[in-house]
Amino acid sequence: MEFFALPPTDGAMRQFVTIDADYCFKIPNNMSMEEASFLEPLSVGLHACRKANIGIGNKVLVLGAGPVGLITMMIAKATNATMALITDIRDHRLEIAKEVGADETVNVSGLSAQDAVEIIVEKLGEAPDVVIECCGVQSSIELAIKAVKDGGKVILVALGAEYVNVPILEVVAKEINLHGVIKYSNTWPAAIEMIRSGKIKLDKLTLAHYKLDEAVEAFKYAQKGEVIKVFIDCGS
Amino acid sequence: MEFFALPPTDGAMRQFVTIDADYCFKIPNNMSMEEASFLEPLSVGLHACRKANIGIGNKVLVLGAGPVGLITMMIAKATNATMALITDIRDHRLEIAKEVGADETVNVSGLSAQDAVEIIVEKLGEAPDVVIECCGVQSSIELAIKAVKDGGKVILVALGAEYVNVPILEVVAKEINLHGVIKYSNTWPAAIEMIRSGKIKLDKLTLAHYKLDEAVEAFKYAQKGEVIKVFIDCGS
Amino acid sequence: MEFFALPPTDGAMRQFVTIDADYCFKIPNNMSMEEASFLEPLSVGLHACRKANIGIGNKVLVLGAGPVGLITMMIAKATNATMALITDIRDHRLEIAKEVGADETVNVSGLSAQDAVEIIVEKLGEAPDVVIECCGVQSSIELAIKAVKDGGKVILVALGAEYVNVPILEVVAKEINLHGVIKYSNTWPAAIEMIRSGKIKLDKLTLAHYKLDEAVEAFKYAQKGEVIKVFIDCGS
Amino acid sequence: MEFFALPPTDGAMRQFVTIDADYCFKIPNNMSMEEASFLEPLSVGLHACRKANIGIGNKVLVLGAGPVGLITMMIAKATNATMALITDIRDHRLEIAKEVGADETVNVSGLSAQDAVEIIVEKLGEAPDVVIECCGVQSSIELAIKAVKDGGKVILVALGAEYVNVPILEVVAKEINLHGVIKYSNTWPAAIEMIRSGKIKLDKLTLAHYKLDEAVEAFKYAQKGEVIKVFIDCGS
Repeated sequence: MEFFALPPTDGAMRQFVTIDADYCFKIPNNMSMEEASFLEPLSVGLHACRKANIGIGNKVLVLGAGPVGLITMMIAKATNATMALITDIRDHRLEIAKEVGADETVNVSGLSAQDAVEIIVEKLGEAPDVVIECCGVQSSIELAIKAVKDGGKVILVALGAEYVNVPILEVVAKEINLHGVIKYSNTWPAAIEMIRSGKIKLDKLTLAHYKLDEAVEAFKYAQKGEVIKVFIDCGS
Repeated sequence: MEFFALPPTDGAMRQFVTIDADYCFKIPNNMSMEEASFLEPLSVGLHACRKANIGIGNKVLVLGAGPVGLITMMIAKATNATMALITDIRDHRLEIAKEVGADETVNVSGLSAQDAVEIIVEKLGEAPDVVIECCGVQSSIELAIKAVKDGGKVILVALGAEYVNVPILEVVAKEINLHGVIKYSNTWPAAIEMIRSGKIKLDKLTLAHYKLDEAVEAFKYAQKGEVIKVFIDCGS
Repeated sequence: MEFFALPPTDGAMRQFVTIDADYCFKIPNNMSMEEASFLEPLSVGLHACRKANIGIGNKVLVLGAGPVGLITMMIAKATNATMALITDIRDHRLEIAKEVGADETVNVSGLSAQDAVEIIVEKLGEAPDVVIECCGVQSSIELAIKAVKDGGKVILVALGAEYVNVPILEVVAKEINLHGVIKYSNTWPAAIEMIRSGKIKLDKLTLAHYKLDEAVEAFKYAQKGEVIKVFIDCGS
Repeated sequence: MEFFALPPTDGAMRQFVTIDADYCFKIPNNMSMEEASFLEPLSVGLHACRKANIGIGNKVLVLGAGPVGLITMMIAKATNATMALITDIRDHRLEIAKEVGADETVNVSGLSAQDAVEIIVEKLGEAPDVVIECCGVQSSIELAIKAVKDGGKVILVALGAEYVNVPILEVVAKEINLHGVIKYSNTWPAAIEMIRSGKIKLDKLTLAHYKLDEAVEAFKYAQKGEVIKVFIDCGS
């Protein structure tokens, strides 16, 4: 597998790049280039949500309000889930989460797993059917397993530590289904459909715009973490 | 199985009825009695959509814009489907369908199956992933099979003729999956969630209101077919 | 798609043929060429059984004891099914079916669908979980639908008439799942495994052996229907 | 939930016990009482194999050759799996495993996870599609995750330590599906079918027979671990 911007392959930050026609998908007339540039991060969330196979009326818990967590939550809410609670340890991110559609948020900083579970269950009205883990740290994986309902699904999206101490007895006793997901496959047509149809609204995510010769500035702004994504227009 | 209003059991059109506590579900504070009365027809559509297991980004064709077809289409659109086309032979119904969220409509009156398929595929941009058949007549079942994409799903909701002439060679050659569905099971909590969360908006469907002593008038109005459902308030 | 022996492509009945390396699979040392030649018909049955997703302990009804029906039944029995009943209208075929592992057989010649269902249910002890239809005629498709248990699966393997009169009301009322299957895909490694492991024993099926220069004689013998398959050794 | 022999409920080791008719299943005439007594341990393996949804032609790795591991392996082999490798740290158990149908065995005592994986892959010819973990210790859970093929399934059957250090990065990077299972549900009819049909042969497992008044002796013999199960006849 080879990806732009995955070493040793350079990124696509130039006016023209050549790729095989087999890997090209036509975008609809009503889709802007900024929306189209979101198809890649959308694919990550789409792949996670497909694996979760969220049932109609399911309640979803997303751990981590970074770009992947936020986009996955947006897709869950735009599709079969009726309620989403998202956690993070930074209030700023949780505010963004609210703006893009989270029903509830919890700042889990300093909370024990048990306390966090109690707050989550109270806010959702019951234990979540699906937990999507987007942090990759021990405390978050532990919370995912302790929070999910019996027979529920935990989707592991984040890449973190190589080994993590997991409450494995609870995985067995609650008959939990844990699914690792990485990158995506066969997501482009469905991701295009999500944007074309307006199911996913990206206007809250496309706030920082740069030209190609402002790329350094764009990267500096991205590092501040005030927005989810910055956009660099590589066109003329 | 026993249902209110299914002979020999009378309907529930009275101020008080007694039912087993096991069959009672608490409705949320923010749900009106009219919304709650919609949980039964929602359950029919929910059961059909669950069986269809609509994928994220799927395009759905609904045949028949009666109450079941409309509500099933609304649920499909509110969940994983990104596009819904609904057919009928009465323009009036197709107008209601547009109002409650159909992306496209086709009046199939007088159209051959082949012509209808061509129009549907052109409007959807491709063959539908899922077809939900809500008419029960030969021409509609034939259209469902001819319209659905290779490997797609046809959900048979309508009860119609005992025997129907089916293009069975196409079912085999296109590896179609045909699923009969009847009534529903285990739908109440999810249906309540759909209304509570606002995923399904019922305000376009709750237009005709009657008191219990106006029930005869309500039935007469229902027969006119100008609205999808009439509501009779059995309270004091 | 292009297959040997599917017009306009000639068959592979010669000493040497050239095919792309991508389409080649290495057969294990313990597998004879005659066993290997069975991988294609095995693939048809394997594809049907995969689609049926037979549960552990399921009872299977196979309609039609031709080569496809027999091989599909053998795979069902060798895997998750605990009991298989096969029907045909020729006693000779049912005798072969017994020899290759059918638990029960029924000659349905002259029987009404209702009578056939009664006999089948009595012999199986209950209605079959899965029915695999390998005849393609109206009476057989009708029997499949009437025999299968509520919520069961009917796999349509045979290509027959273009249109067939189907008891569609029963498909809906019994929530039957009908799946068309044609040819196969991704079956070679699993089919090789079935033979290598001895799960499928082919010695009852490899009874008629010919050399390449006896091919005409082989075809004549095949037409008599006394064996399931004839084998022509194309080697030197 | 209440089970015989699960404190505070006493076991059923007496001539007569009373249970609700709803929990009774009729055993076939051809089934002995010893075979019938095996329906409970069979249910554990059946539940694990159902969750694994073993594909036709799959290769299965079972970790731990205790009663649960052996019976689960036997069910896997009797159904969709074509090859099973079982591991343990006692040669005596691996000999029993061979006798009851394991294709391959590996004594993993003293082996690193990496070395064990290499031996397993060499013996199976490829990485296993499904791993069934029946030990519950860290080294075994680690081996399960390292051995299973990309996108494969790990079924966690054993109850062991509360927390275990898990190679979680590998779960994500290999898109592994981990499923906890505990006890069973809805297994009796299928388990009865497995024995009735002869798919599972129990004659290698029913070797030690005692009368009710020899129960103490039976328990002492069971503790020696020379047989998988001892049988106590509670009849007159």
